[in-house]
Amino acid sequence: MLERIPYRPLDCASLPQRLGDRPELLAPLGPATGWRVREVGDGNLNLVFIVESDAGSLVVKQALPYARVVGESWPMSLDRAFFEHEALKRLGARDPGRVPDLKLFDPTQALLVMEHLTPHTVVRRALMAGEELPRLGEHVGLYLARTLFRGSDWSLPTAVRKADLALFAGNVELAGITEELVFSDPFKDAPLNRHTPGLEAAALAVRSDRALKIAAQEMKARFATCAETLLHGDLHTGSVMATADDTRVIDAEFALYGPMGFDVGVLLAHLWMACFARSAHHGDAPSADRAGARLLACAETCWQVFAAEFARLWRTERTGILGGCDLFEDQGDSEGSEAALAGQLATVWRDALGFAGIEIHRRILGLAHVAEFETIADTGRRAALERRALAFGRHLAVNRHALDTPAAVTCAVLAAEGV
Amino acid sequence: MLERIPYRPLDCASLPQRLGDRPELLAPLGPATGWRVREVGDGNLNLVFIVESDAGSLVVKQALPYARVVGESWPMSLDRAFFEHEALKRLGARDPGRVPDLKLFDPTQALLVMEHLTPHTVVRRALMAGEELPRLGEHVGLYLARTLFRGSDWSLPTAVRKADLALFAGNVELAGITEELVFSDPFKDAPLNRHTPGLEAAALAVRSDRALKIAAQEMKARFATCAETLLHGDLHTGSVMATADDTRVIDAEFALYGPMGFDVGVLLAHLWMACFARSAHHGDAPSADRAGARLLACAETCWQVFAAEFARLWRTERTGILGGCDLFEDQGDSEGSEAALAGQLATVWRDALGFAGIEIHRRILGLAHVAEFETIADTGRRAALERRALAFGRHLAVNRHALDTPAAVTCAVLAAEGV
Repeated sequence: MLERIPYRPLDCASLPQRLGDRPELLAPLGPATGWRVREVGDGNLNLVFIVESDAGSLVVKQALPYARVVGESWPMSLDRAFFEHEALKRLGARDPGRVPDLKLFDPTQALLVMEHLTPHTVVRRALMAGEELPRLGEHVGLYLARTLFRGSDWSLPTAVRKADLALFAGNVELAGITEELVFSDPFKDAPLNRHTPGLEAAALAVRSDRALKIAAQEMKARFATCAETLLHGDLHTGSVMATADDTRVIDAEFALYGPMGFDVGVLLAHLWMACFARSAHHGDAPSADRAGARLLACAETCWQVFAAEFARLWRTERTGILGGCDLFEDQGDSEGSEAALAGQLATVWRDALGFAGIEIHRRILGLAHVAEFETIADTGRRAALERRALAFGRHLAVNRHALDTPAAVTCAVLAAEGV
Repeated sequence: MLERIPYRPLDCASLPQRLGDRPELLAPLGPATGWRVREVGDGNLNLVFIVESDAGSLVVKQALPYARVVGESWPMSLDRAFFEHEALKRLGARDPGRVPDLKLFDPTQALLVMEHLTPHTVVRRALMAGEELPRLGEHVGLYLARTLFRGSDWSLPTAVRKADLALFAGNVELAGITEELVFSDPFKDAPLNRHTPGLEAAALAVRSDRALKIAAQEMKARFATCAETLLHGDLHTGSVMATADDTRVIDAEFALYGPMGFDVGVLLAHLWMACFARSAHHGDAPSADRAGARLLACAETCWQVFAAEFARLWRTERTGILGGCDLFEDQGDSEGSEAALAGQLATVWRDALGFAGIEIHRRILGLAHVAEFETIADTGRRAALERRALAFGRHLAVNRHALDTPAAVTCAVLAAEGV
């Protein structure tokens, strides 16, 4: 029985034997003798298996006791499977249907069994392949509004919110990864940093860019101290899977309480980075232009749908201690409530721009890079595109108070490209 | 033995019998037969006894299972004694000598035994009596800088800070009191509200003052979501005791993680309110003027000493994850660090003004009032002085972004008084 043995990583050969008596897998898949198993983990931290039979398929995700991206020299607590499970339950309840169905969680084996999303593809890969994903911006905008609003003191009973804050405060190790790798390493000479040949001067310039470093510190302080809502915590385009009609959010092990703008900003950063890299992935100039326009439109849609859904929830679900209906609507002042809403949305937007600017730096100068740039074999071309993205990211982080709308950001993208 | 009986409130007669076998009291006081006990609690929540003998004296503080200010109809968890004990330990370690020495904590009886501060008097009463307390601003400024800085992610190891955040997230009930009574009730027609006759129009005006209500909601959101450091949580002038040479901070049961500006702003609010009430407590006009000038100077000194000590700690103890020495000093950019310091101090100052403005409203229109105003028997005169304080408080809350210095606030005090 699974529970009786201590933690041990699964592999394709042992998985049917070790999980073959679990009803949660047997029911959908049938007897383990008919299971076909492949390991597909391409993330930085975990093992991911797809288990298929003639009857169906499931995903088995198991945490490793170290960071896969670095190796066994970077030990990492298995508790992250616990936090991922806790987070997925909450995110799924707040935006039903947007995360995979959970079938089984085994804390000893740091293992989650969940719905196999098919024919979904990872959004990053789909966008690089030129897929259109016409509902991506809308779905992710809705997801962000619902999970961020409903996990906050604007919505939840405060005792529930505070108990949850206490629970996720235990996810120290993964928070620490973000704190170091995102907000600090890219702005100094850190051992894990790496960058494309040709970016030496850019990497050096960042380290003496006082305004940018102050912005990085300010955003780090927002991240570490502003316990506004339960975040996904790592919502890049590799943590989203989609088809033309459906969109799902996966990989929530970085979940923690933080500012709403973090999840929003990280997602937008990856759409904008994809835009900067587009010329390398879309044959001719016209198709690259179309892909770029789609990415910018997707980012704008994401924000607009987010803002509209957030406003709808603000008007209909403000039941938490920060709701303030007692000061506004209940006193006949719904315009006051709308003004307070505008203030909160402005805060989320400003934070999102700051976090996006920092995220872009860490994905080009830090440890973990993105496939859009990494797969460009011509390093001179890659460096040139990354340099533009860095200039754009700096602009976002440093001038986040002056960029009021998604359209202004779109203009900034074009400006960074010298258009 | 104390531990064997369930919780029961002490009274003067039973205290020697119930605590007479505790070495923590016996050692300083001698046998219980020689104890003299009086109950001196004048706060809103607890029993406070002074236990004296010919050998010495101690204070025994016991939580009641309800809010003393309202009565048994408002039940309240005894856990607040636990949080007070935990908080006093931490605050005492961060600014040694500034809180009373703790002798004993009994969780079952929700009871703390601590040093009897003598000849200290409660600062509120001392100021009303015209005492000078020449070191008050300096001591409280140092206390604020040390406790707020050293409890934050700028200083503490992040795992310690996050575990502490989780612990104090349990102080839900007392946080809830602040959230309701401070940030919401004064701005609506709440059952517990009360105000001086003659302030009906002012109380009504507040309820339709959209800018003020939005400020109240913004400050409430800062309070509820900005988990910057461990706060005292109720640092008014009744929570400080002093002599001419010494200053001590007591009554930390409201402790929780929140924004640095909260403790600062609440304390300043009470100094400023005392200034508005001064003419009622200081015989002739010249002595009232001198008292007012001393109060304004005390507030300015408090902030200046706070800022100077915060800067010293910033330069010498920035060891936490938000320290950022790796981005600044370690790269030879100490000016960058100074710029980041200025940004953080500006945030604390702006928050402090916002919280002070809200605190003034709740002390005049909410449930819990201050003796400076309450003891003015002439209600017409009291209402006139309170009206000025409200105008000033509104200015602080609504225009907190435009008031850059303590001197600007002093001018605002004079303006509110029509000087």
